[in-house]
Amino acid sequence: MSLTALNSTHDPQLRSWLASANAADADFPIQNLPFGVFRRRGSSEPFRGGVAIGDAIVDLGAAAPLFAGLAAEAAAAAARPALNALMALGAPAASALRAALSEALRQGAPQQAALERCLAAQAQAEYAVPAQVGDYTDFYASIHHATAVGRLMRPDQPLLPNYKWIPVGYHGRSSSIVVSGQGIRRPCGQTLPQGMAEPVFGPSRRLDYELELGLFVGQGNALGTPVPMAQAESHLFGVCLLNDWSARDIQGWEYQPLGPFLAKNFATTVSPWIVSFEALAPFRLPFLRPAADPQPLPYLDSAENRAAGAIDIRLEVLLESAAMRSRGEAPWRLSTSSYRHSYWTAAQLLAHHTVNGCNLRPGDLLGSGTQSGPAPEEAGCLLELTQAGRKPVALGGGETRSFLQDGDRVILRGWCEKPGAVRIGFGEAAGEVLPALAAAT
Amino acid sequence: MSLTALNSTHDPQLRSWLASANAADADFPIQNLPFGVFRRRGSSEPFRGGVAIGDAIVDLGAAAPLFAGLAAEAAAAAARPALNALMALGAPAASALRAALSEALRQGAPQQAALERCLAAQAQAEYAVPAQVGDYTDFYASIHHATAVGRLMRPDQPLLPNYKWIPVGYHGRSSSIVVSGQGIRRPCGQTLPQGMAEPVFGPSRRLDYELELGLFVGQGNALGTPVPMAQAESHLFGVCLLNDWSARDIQGWEYQPLGPFLAKNFATTVSPWIVSFEALAPFRLPFLRPAADPQPLPYLDSAENRAAGAIDIRLEVLLESAAMRSRGEAPWRLSTSSYRHSYWTAAQLLAHHTVNGCNLRPGDLLGSGTQSGPAPEEAGCLLELTQAGRKPVALGGGETRSFLQDGDRVILRGWCEKPGAVRIGFGEAAGEVLPALAAAT
Repeated sequence: MSLTALNSTHDPQLRSWLASANAADADFPIQNLPFGVFRRRGSSEPFRGGVAIGDAIVDLGAAAPLFAGLAAEAAAAAARPALNALMALGAPAASALRAALSEALRQGAPQQAALERCLAAQAQAEYAVPAQVGDYTDFYASIHHATAVGRLMRPDQPLLPNYKWIPVGYHGRSSSIVVSGQGIRRPCGQTLPQGMAEPVFGPSRRLDYELELGLFVGQGNALGTPVPMAQAESHLFGVCLLNDWSARDIQGWEYQPLGPFLAKNFATTVSPWIVSFEALAPFRLPFLRPAADPQPLPYLDSAENRAAGAIDIRLEVLLESAAMRSRGEAPWRLSTSSYRHSYWTAAQLLAHHTVNGCNLRPGDLLGSGTQSGPAPEEAGCLLELTQAGRKPVALGGGETRSFLQDGDRVILRGWCEKPGAVRIGFGEAAGEVLPALAAAT
Repeated sequence: MSLTALNSTHDPQLRSWLASANAADADFPIQNLPFGVFRRRGSSEPFRGGVAIGDAIVDLGAAAPLFAGLAAEAAAAAARPALNALMALGAPAASALRAALSEALRQGAPQQAALERCLAAQAQAEYAVPAQVGDYTDFYASIHHATAVGRLMRPDQPLLPNYKWIPVGYHGRSSSIVVSGQGIRRPCGQTLPQGMAEPVFGPSRRLDYELELGLFVGQGNALGTPVPMAQAESHLFGVCLLNDWSARDIQGWEYQPLGPFLAKNFATTVSPWIVSFEALAPFRLPFLRPAADPQPLPYLDSAENRAAGAIDIRLEVLLESAAMRSRGEAPWRLSTSSYRHSYWTAAQLLAHHTVNGCNLRPGDLLGSGTQSGPAPEEAGCLLELTQAGRKPVALGGGETRSFLQDGDRVILRGWCEKPGAVRIGFGEAAGEVLPALAAAT
């Protein structure tokens, strides 16, 4: 179960009776079936679990009576305001539910009429963070990001000696994780302006995004019990998009010696939909380490990981400024990248996290770290793209950016595609920068 | 409400009808009344909220009908397996409950007979972590610890330039917080032995404790809304003892550039009882910054904090080795210290944590950082006491320690005392080191 095999749910010939799911550019074809929580927009209904299909959402609690066995149990568990109970059931339960949905959504499925009554329109939905996140951990798994950022801070030693041995990570803040669409208040804090001897207090002037993936934990592990590589991926429920908003000026002054804190914990945006590893199976690639690099220690290595640990998830960042919005222009693409470049795989992050006995719980979230690609234009944050603000990027229409301005809306998108497979989309993780509050007293 | 004024619950003349509460060396006199959750030892009863008095525990759910108004509401909220609902009610609710208990537990109180039926014996109780901790943050608030540790790593610059401006902190792991008494499995991990070019994997050989206080958050704040200094302490529910177990060899190899991770997140031990700031009011002291040091920025400063921000909480660490246990010897005192030496106060930690808009939730936990005093023998961890293992400490009976050995039981204790006031105790936070599991595959 670790590196999910292809099964019938991936069949590229499958079509749904829901026409919108069959469009070539759909994010949510019948081969995807990502999980989230939703309710009618603007209502005070409880949030509840759903699965995206085309332009609609299957209400899982409503659909549960259509299924049997483990699939029915999983659908009932997903009826709550967060998916933790579904996640706790483990990979076979989510897999059974996905298989049952795949059957029931196919053209000609006898459940069509009944299932149609369980559909809600995405256009009328709003979303919440899909799980109650107990602990949020952020990794640093792109060597291209680590090298580029390291070069800005330590030109003589961009990459620290531990980088190729350890999936470097740190704990983030779970309370401030928000779902796509929520505004992001520019934080205030201490910064040390260049050339000054004492810090000043005020709104961050170097606000940045970070293009990441988020990995939700499914079944947890007991405190004291590591998860070996062979089982690691089966403890992950799925993948979303994640923006690790970062205040670079606050970060630069505060982060030594214990790491980022207020520079990061004011907000983290996730996309509403969690794509399963099953849906990603057609897009797996060998996990290749350059021969000159250290090979992973045994606890971070497995034959499956070498054979198919990487995943080609295409990623892009777009920026829509207030001026673009007022002119009705489309957002400007800042960069593209792919998760296939990650120096550490999802399974390695989870195995490393638990090797000391640390317990993960259903709904916990792991960030992949900024997923920059090898080329400079594939950088996943402005810090890299603008060389720490020294080389502003042009947005078209005459605007430039060193860092984010108030009113900027940052949009992360992700998708998988290749010949012979159906496109699998992640939707988006978007957030608009709101002006700072008047400085705190 | 920020720096709690003395009130009738502190009256040193107060005596309880429960004789054990009146002993001069009692941790839990009627002036204390700390909160925790308990159940009958070895039972499968749900945990429920209680208040320690002498050698007994008031079962708050059972006692709730004896109270009225806000105190009754608070007692009912505390009847659950974790105190989050009580914490969410805010400082006035816990204060009202404490005042009502103080009345009902006094000699001559008419509620004596009814309240006696709500008592459980501590000797027959077991405890859980008193709140469901959403996020756990660990600070670094002792300048003596930061300087001593910094000197080991950077002899030329022990204290980094930000230390006197920022209450340095980082996010810890909430899932692995355990209550006093639970065994601590020695973690495995990557380390880089001195003189070697490549890391090795195995059990930590430099396992350490850290003597800290834990601050539980009461009423939370909304995302985007800082808590000013004047209100900061009213957002704290109370104080416990905290052992931030640390694997120094894992830490040394992993912590750059993003801070400690697996070196810390395998376990954090808290004491079962949370002492209120009200109970600590008689032991407050002026918060004095050396005149040559930077004075706190306005968002970290208040007249109340200057007048009474510090608290003289005496702290000590004891070690009981397996050999001592087999010989029936008392634990060996490794060091003593006091929270009064902290470079940053509790209110400053909370104000700093929220100044960027980060939201704290009821039950969140802040660690104070290792509370070392100014003298070398007041060091709050073995790393400091033994100069990174170079000067082992003698335990008496012929044993020495550089770092912790399997079977070592580490006991943190805390209390307040001064002439004219009744002693306020914290109980203890203890944990025994268990051997590492066979190395993970």
